[in-house]
Amino acid sequence: MTTVRETSENPSPSRRAVIGWGGAGLALGAAAAGGVTAAVTGREDVATVADTGSAVPFHGPHQAGIATAVQDRLHFAAFDVKTKDRAELIQLLKDWTRAAERMTAGREVGEGAYGGLPEAPPDDTGEALGLKPSRLTLTIGFGPSLFDGRFGLADRRPAALVDLPKFPHDNLDPARSDGDLCIQACADDPQIAVHAIRNLARIGFGKVAVRWSQLGFGKTSSTTPDAQTPRNLFGFKDGTRNIAGTETDRLDKFVWAAGKDAAWMDGGSYLVARRIRMHIETWDRTPLAEQEDIFGRDKREGAPVGKAREHDEPFLKAMKPDSHVRLAHPDSNGGATILRRGYSFTDGTDGLGRLESGLFFLAYQRDVRTGFIPVQTSLARNDALNEYTQHVGSAIFAIPPGVRNTDDWWGRELFA
Amino acid sequence: MTTVRETSENPSPSRRAVIGWGGAGLALGAAAAGGVTAAVTGREDVATVADTGSAVPFHGPHQAGIATAVQDRLHFAAFDVKTKDRAELIQLLKDWTRAAERMTAGREVGEGAYGGLPEAPPDDTGEALGLKPSRLTLTIGFGPSLFDGRFGLADRRPAALVDLPKFPHDNLDPARSDGDLCIQACADDPQIAVHAIRNLARIGFGKVAVRWSQLGFGKTSSTTPDAQTPRNLFGFKDGTRNIAGTETDRLDKFVWAAGKDAAWMDGGSYLVARRIRMHIETWDRTPLAEQEDIFGRDKREGAPVGKAREHDEPFLKAMKPDSHVRLAHPDSNGGATILRRGYSFTDGTDGLGRLESGLFFLAYQRDVRTGFIPVQTSLARNDALNEYTQHVGSAIFAIPPGVRNTDDWWGRELFA
Repeated sequence: MTTVRETSENPSPSRRAVIGWGGAGLALGAAAAGGVTAAVTGREDVATVADTGSAVPFHGPHQAGIATAVQDRLHFAAFDVKTKDRAELIQLLKDWTRAAERMTAGREVGEGAYGGLPEAPPDDTGEALGLKPSRLTLTIGFGPSLFDGRFGLADRRPAALVDLPKFPHDNLDPARSDGDLCIQACADDPQIAVHAIRNLARIGFGKVAVRWSQLGFGKTSSTTPDAQTPRNLFGFKDGTRNIAGTETDRLDKFVWAAGKDAAWMDGGSYLVARRIRMHIETWDRTPLAEQEDIFGRDKREGAPVGKAREHDEPFLKAMKPDSHVRLAHPDSNGGATILRRGYSFTDGTDGLGRLESGLFFLAYQRDVRTGFIPVQTSLARNDALNEYTQHVGSAIFAIPPGVRNTDDWWGRELFA
Repeated sequence: MTTVRETSENPSPSRRAVIGWGGAGLALGAAAAGGVTAAVTGREDVATVADTGSAVPFHGPHQAGIATAVQDRLHFAAFDVKTKDRAELIQLLKDWTRAAERMTAGREVGEGAYGGLPEAPPDDTGEALGLKPSRLTLTIGFGPSLFDGRFGLADRRPAALVDLPKFPHDNLDPARSDGDLCIQACADDPQIAVHAIRNLARIGFGKVAVRWSQLGFGKTSSTTPDAQTPRNLFGFKDGTRNIAGTETDRLDKFVWAAGKDAAWMDGGSYLVARRIRMHIETWDRTPLAEQEDIFGRDKREGAPVGKAREHDEPFLKAMKPDSHVRLAHPDSNGGATILRRGYSFTDGTDGLGRLESGLFFLAYQRDVRTGFIPVQTSLARNDALNEYTQHVGSAIFAIPPGVRNTDDWWGRELFA
């Protein structure tokens, strides 16, 4: 048996460190049976391997994964809670928090790597061993159905956690909508994001079940000031004037919820997730000029009509009344502003010879009633783009504030 | 209109260059109506933007994407040919070849970027603009059904392009199996791989239809000598002694087909694709020692039973008779050796609260009758891993030799 075990007095270092350990343990052979702490501490490479590289801090007043510079890849999962036991749900949220702390730091789940005992299933599924943290963020949300009374939370549902109205052209699949809980995993390496969701699902086995999940292969938005906006599957830059993670005043005004509505949401946010199928085959046969009219931008640079650069201020009246940029602009919606964090997806084929592609739209806001709802009401009624898109999944979640420290846990204020 | 057009005398440079053009064209404004060649050539950054960075050469005696060092991400598509016209199919293969040459070099499809005319649909869908080539390779294959007589190819089917036998435990979905043609797109950036498949599907509109497609988010194999093998979703390294792209003698012996069977396949290969669902939830509840017995390796380092390092020569008799490494080893299968290039996938959920995850297995070989078939026969009968896996999709393709130059095209020898 060549497995190296860690002692609980010596929590495991980063994934990169752990790989180093494997080698050290092997070199020591059977003599290291009780633990390899001393030998490892003496190794030259320990100082460097303790560096978790590009890890995003997990603790803070807000959850990471919202204002965080958008990572390249996404794995998003919605869960149904299966247990009816409030205490069991609370314990799961505590267990998830501890696992999230470790994984976002680039560490394995569980103190005793691989379960500690060969007779037990491993504490970590292992496929992220040797990989970097890749800026993994894990962001939890609570859906409206969590407040239905099963867990004594009926009177804690924030007024802002509304049921979304039905919008024109919606064609929602219940199997791809809603959920009691959600976890958004973002990372620059998709293996890291998938590993995180999979391990949280594993920890929740018997208490929660994955209701739906969505991989996003390419980010379509940026929360980094002045960066070029990544292109969506229509080949356009969209959401150019997104809220940057450094714009604390706009974040306070438009993204972070106050505690007025529900005290436990102070510092949280509200997330709308929409699975938007994009009919790319039809789009690809549309003339360039028409594509540009529909968006209200030129395709190559992403500049608004009549302007030269992506980030130039748009002159809305120069655009067609049903153009996407014009209709989505805050000036057309009473100032409504959302933080966009969506990803492109391609999930095989649709059985009709077409790629099942689209945008998994994610938007964070202080209040959906002054954010997503007015914007989408305007778009759903008039957007010229509707001919090429269809909303096929929808969910809304209350995103609680951040976990403050290693004693805190996801949802502590809610269950207090 | 801010679109910049290229002249046919001045083929477009790399994607990065094109982005530079946008700016130049805009600065020139209306004066540049006839083309911006002179202005662009005078720009300081043209020398650097002609560098396509990490591009893999498209031309050569073998197709790229086989011996090429395995890229991080995959988009694989199988197509049904809809046209019944041999000449139309040949023209499509020529058009695809020219598009593949451009995209693998990091260039847009089509000489006149975005169609040249605003009244026409763009020649390129645009979402890869500004991205690097990311080592994109595009590899075409011809399935057995292409030789059914529709195109006068019945007598050109190689004997080695067999119909795969039904293996024990196979549970194949016809909608995820077979195909007249396939394209394997591998790249380090998934947006580049998806863009390539999407544009080939677009070019083939009306002549071919996507039958099925598969995204792979993480490579599970390496063709780079002495590299660590990436972990699969069971958390193990598998296929440690893969054929390296630099081992020309093993490539000649096990991967490249000779022309003896079918002259047009000289320098080609045969690909077996299997969609293997992995029941990760069951696996995750299996004790570590049992997991290690099933593979015949330790989990952390990937060393064979009783050995210290991943690449140490395995001692098969020390492993359980039904262990995966022992059964898959060439010594257990009359020397059968395949080049593996598989990817992990996660395609949402299965409706039962579980992630729809697994391995999209891709293996290249000189002859499947001495490669995949004996190995899989042995595994399907006895592998302890079968309790945790199920083959749900299957396809086989003849992979023609490489495109030699800009006059050559995919399948020229076949249709000669």
